[in-house]
Formats: sequence, C-alpha cells, structure tokens
Amino acid sequence: MTAAPPRLLIVGAGLIGTSIGLAASASGAEVWLSEPDPGRLATAVGRGAGCAWPTGARPGIDLAVVAAPPSATGRECADLLARPAIPAVTHVCSVQQRPLRELTETGADLSRFCGGHPVAGIERTGPEHADAALFRDRAWVVCPAAETRPAAVAAVVDLARLCGARPVHLDPGRHDHLFARLSHTPQLVASALAATLEHMTAEEAALAGSGLRDTTRLADSQPQLWSEIAAANAAEVAGALRAAIAPLADLVHALDTAGDPDQAGAAVADLVRRGNRGRAKLPGKHGGAAQPVAEVRAVIDDRPGALLRLLEQVAAAGVNLEDLRVEHTSGHLSGTAALAVVPAAAAPLRAALRQAGYAVSGPADEPS
Amino acid sequence: MTAAPPRLLIVGAGLIGTSIGLAASASGAEVWLSEPDPGRLATAVGRGAGCAWPTGARPGIDLAVVAAPPSATGRECADLLARPAIPAVTHVCSVQQRPLRELTETGADLSRFCGGHPVAGIERTGPEHADAALFRDRAWVVCPAAETRPAAVAAVVDLARLCGARPVHLDPGRHDHLFARLSHTPQLVASALAATLEHMTAEEAALAGSGLRDTTRLADSQPQLWSEIAAANAAEVAGALRAAIAPLADLVHALDTAGDPDQAGAAVADLVRRGNRGRAKLPGKHGGAAQPVAEVRAVIDDRPGALLRLLEQVAAAGVNLEDLRVEHTSGHLSGTAALAVVPAAAAPLRAALRQAGYAVSGPADEPS
Repeated sequence: MTAAPPRLLIVGAGLIGTSIGLAASASGAEVWLSEPDPGRLATAVGRGAGCAWPTGARPGIDLAVVAAPPSATGRECADLLARPAIPAVTHVCSVQQRPLRELTETGADLSRFCGGHPVAGIERTGPEHADAALFRDRAWVVCPAAETRPAAVAAVVDLARLCGARPVHLDPGRHDHLFARLSHTPQLVASALAATLEHMTAEEAALAGSGLRDTTRLADSQPQLWSEIAAANAAEVAGALRAAIAPLADLVHALDTAGDPDQAGAAVADLVRRGNRGRAKLPGKHGGAAQPVAEVRAVIDDRPGALLRLLEQVAAAGVNLEDLRVEHTSGHLSGTAALAVVPAAAAPLRAALRQAGYAVSGPADEPS
Repeated sequence: MTAAPPRLLIVGAGLIGTSIGLAASASGAEVWLSEPDPGRLATAVGRGAGCAWPTGARPGIDLAVVAAPPSATGRECADLLARPAIPAVTHVCSVQQRPLRELTETGADLSRFCGGHPVAGIERTGPEHADAALFRDRAWVVCPAAETRPAAVAAVVDLARLCGARPVHLDPGRHDHLFARLSHTPQLVASALAATLEHMTAEEAALAGSGLRDTTRLADSQPQLWSEIAAANAAEVAGALRAAIAPLADLVHALDTAGDPDQAGAAVADLVRRGNRGRAKLPGKHGGAAQPVAEVRAVIDDRPGALLRLLEQVAAAGVNLEDLRVEHTSGHLSGTAALAVVPAAAAPLRAALRQAGYAVSGPADEPS
C-alpha cells in the first residue's frame, strides 16, 4: 500500500463508480467524480462518494478510474492517458481485451495503463443503488498490459484493497476466456432458458419448482448491459456458447432418433456426469474445494418471524449454519428452509427441531 | 374426500414411495409397502412409512401407488391392474405418456388407472431421506387417461390431499410438454453449463459469482435418474432443448461474424428481453404473479449466529421478509444476506440495520 491514501478521479457515477467512490472515501481517499449527467452526479456527491471534478483548475490525482459502459471504456481511458499529469489509469470493465486493443490502436501510453475488473453483482444500476460494501471480500481482477509499469499495477492493487477486495492477477486474454465461461455465457443461457417460458400461462408456469427459478435467476438481467458485454467479448463468448450447446445439440439428435432409448439415455447420463464434475470445481462456502455438508429441511410457515424462530432453535442446538436456502411453495403461505450443516451436526439438529415441533426431513431414527 | 382414510399399497420404497407412506400414515391411512430390496424395506418400515406387504394372504386395498423408476412404471402398473381386487392404480412418474402407452399396448384395464406426478424435489434418493412434508403445498399433477373412471381420479385426488399437496388436473400430453420445459430441459441445460467448468482450475472457478452457482445448482443431479426421465420423454425433451438452444446457436453465428458488433449486440439484447418476459411468468412467493420486492443487502460475518442476529434486527424493525438469500464470498469468512421486502419497508429497514452497525447497501439519505 502507498503511505498516504490516494487521490482518485472516477469517471462515471453509475453503480460501480459510485460504489468505488463510497468505499474509497470511507477509507480516507480523496475522491473526485466526473459524470456528464447532472442528476447522477448530484446523487453520487450527495451520498458522499466524492466531490464534483472542477471544470477549471484540475487538482492533482494519483489514479483515474474509468467506470463507463464497455463500448465507451477504451475511449475514456485514451482521453485520460493523453493527459501526462495523470500518473495511472484503470477501468472496471468486465471485458479486458477490447479496451486494450482500442488503446493500442490509438497509440496511447500503455505504461500508465492497467485494466481492472471488480467482480461484483450488477443486478441493479445507478448511483442510488451504490454500496460501499459491494466489493468487500470479492475478487478484483488486475490485468496489466505487457507495457504496464509496476507503479500502475500497484495503484490498481491498492485501489482494490482500499475497497476491501482481493486483487487477483490475470492476463487480459485469460480474463476474457474465463469470464466468457464464468459469467457471460451463463447469463445468455439463463436468458434462453427463461425465453422458453414466454408463451406459457401463469398457471402452467406455477408448476415450476425452485430449480427452474434458480436456473433462470440471471435472466432478470439488463438487455443493454449484456448486449454490450457480449459484443465486446464476442469471440470468447461465441466459443463458450458453442461449448455449452454442442452436447445439447448432440442430445437432441440422440433423443430424436429415439429408436434406441438406451443410447439416448447413455448420452444424457454422460452429460449429467460431466456436469457433476464441473460443479465440483465451484468453491464451497469458504473458497476451498466444496466441503461435504448435510442438508436438514424444515417446514416454516409464512408468518412474520418464522425464519427467526427457526434460527433461534438452530442456535439453541449449538449448530452453526454453513448455508441456508428458503424454498417457497407457490400458491401457499409456507415454505421449506434448507439448512446446510456439517454432516456430524445433521442428526442432532433434526432431533432438536423435531423436539421443537418442526416438520423435518430425514431419518427419525438415526443416532443423535 | 372419501369418508374413511384409504388403504394404500405403495410399490417401491425409495424417496418418493417412502415419503408418501410417511405422509399418508401420519394422516391415518393404512399403508402397505412392497419393495424387493430388504434393506430399503426395513428402513421404510422402521421409519413408520407402513407395514411390509405380506406375500401370502393379501389385505384389501383401495389404491395402489407405483413409485418406481420411469422405465419400470408401466410394467408395475400393468401387473397391479391385472389383479381385479385392486380398484385403482396410480404412479408418481415425472413422465406420463410413456407408461400410459405401455399400458395401452398391453391391453390393461385403463378404467382403473390414473397417472399422477407429485412435483417435489428429488435431489436425494432412498428411504433414509424420505420426508412426510415433501409434498406439503406442492402441486400433485393428476393425469387421467380417456378411459379412466371418475372413482380412480378421485382416489388420486384424495391421495394428493392426504399428503398435503394441491391436485392439478392435466392431460398426459400437456403434462409431458410442460415438464419437458419446466423441469427436464433446465436440468440438462444446467448440466451442459456446468460441464464447461470441467477443465478449469479451482482458482479459476473461484472467480465465479453466486449467479453461476445458482444457474448450475441443478447440475448436482443423478445421471441414472435423469437419463431415464429424458429417454422416457424423448420427443418433448428434444423439442424443448431445440427451442432453448436455437437462439443461442443464432447468437454464436452473430458473434462469430462480428464484423458488425451492433448486430450481435442487438441479437443479445433481444434474447435477454425475451428472457425477462419468460421470467415474469414465474410465480412470486405466493404463487401469484411475481410481486415487486426491494432488496436490502447487509454484510454478515461468518461467526455462529450471525444470521440469527441479523434477523433479530429485522424483526425488531417490524419488517417481514419476503425472501432471503445468503451469498458467500469465496475465500473469505463473510457473506452478504440479500433480504427481499416489500418496497415500502426497504428504507426503514436499511436505516434500522445501519443504526445497528451493519454495512448495508442502498441510499443512505432516502426518506425513512
């Protein structure tokens, strides 16, 4: 970390820019905000994300952060790199190669440039939803170009830490390859799946279980944002989409020629097994390999405080929750709380909850 | 409902069969269990799901319930329909047309047959995970054949209610069409998406957000079960898969010919918008159209009871939760609780939680 808190210029007071301003200001940084929309600027300044960047005399800054849409990121970075008084420039774009390519084409000074990508949810937009805690404990990918000087890399690492994030270094090409698979393609696949519901009646869609709801949650996303991201990472997204749909196209073929259901079944089983292995790559709660947990399912009613009362029983049983999911049953005022606990805690917890009057899944006669 | 609790014969003591036995027994039904595996039978009987079906003298029953894998369902139903002493036969298969077709081909007496499908999670298997509450408030699809007599339909409706479920009447063809889209295809798409992670390192996969985890949750499913279901509903699953992947194949083409990024972007935006509309068809918490909710996000640490303490603050603020999701940040001992509340409650709840010392997303200066 540098000794003194940095002086930042943030270009763009949307959700991400304003959130960085809030987090950095709270950590003692001097933050200036540049935003053409007066309403957004006023909201961001009013929330304490920083001061409006003066149009006349320009205060000294240590790092400029471009928080603009993917299509504008390269141009904004080029404008800032053209000012020699700005020692380092970064951005927060979820695509890295396109802005870098644009900067290379314009002959910008890449020694002062280092790409960045704070990995945080972007389900909402606008400074009114900004959140100083948005980056806390999240990855912040740091993507230097070949020409980037160490000081510019260090400035981005410092910014990530200032916002409570965990800096992760990646080559820009590898970044785009991975995020096409970890983020962009899942978005588009969720949208395609949700689109198949478009012409159902509400009564028919009400037959869906919580599985479909989870699988399509990302489909609540913003058309404009995702069209920009996918177009900006076109080659990698095309490759990742191709990899995702190829086995499904094979399945369609196997199911269509269903003279041999065994062959179709074998193809399905093979894909499901590959999916099992892929899922096992996703980290468990604490970022390590997924650890085994047992699930205890308890029925809760839908009165205020029902979940609170259940968690009181869990705490009284001395059990720590590893995870919790609430499944609502459609059409009725109740649901099931799925409590994930370490395997050894499952039986005692089931016994304690049954004792307290809950309808609980799982063996009644297991040793507790 | 019939006046007296029914006498049931359940064929197959897996998760579903044993759960029906537990629920029906708890509601006063007389339940007999037929299961070739002595270990499973002993577990189911030991848990109170019913008594072992005697091989000699056969007690009288009102309804036989086949709870077997899809490939065995038709044959088991045919065996039972061949016994005139059994007045009605149903099953619990997630595919309806295939067993009906098999029964038709064997010339079974369809007047005593009525298909059924309790819509419940089947992430686990075996009588040890059975759950009397598994069907509570869930849909139980009732699928009579053209020949089915009203008494057989009524017997299945009564069984559904006995287990706490909500009977929903559907034609077998419509059932298979809908569940190909609501259940079978989402499973396979989640598996295909998860399969693309197969060759990543754990460090790379750790960059995934909660979105990917939700989208691929169904990919933790069982290869054998899903290969049977997909093969048994081959034509409808092929059609639904084709509908899901067609727009993705179009996108691959648009992104590949990325000479015109605007055109690719427009295709992405169009798909995301269609997905938005499809998502809007899914019911909200209480089975109606999704109602607007506001989200309040609060950072919780990972100490035992952290979630409990947060919910105590929510209750103290007089706010009822509409939904709750916990997002774990990988690699760190903390997470974010996303609390869904009615929009009017969001500002007061944010203020109350800030007051209590929580890091909370959203406007600090909104009226409370």
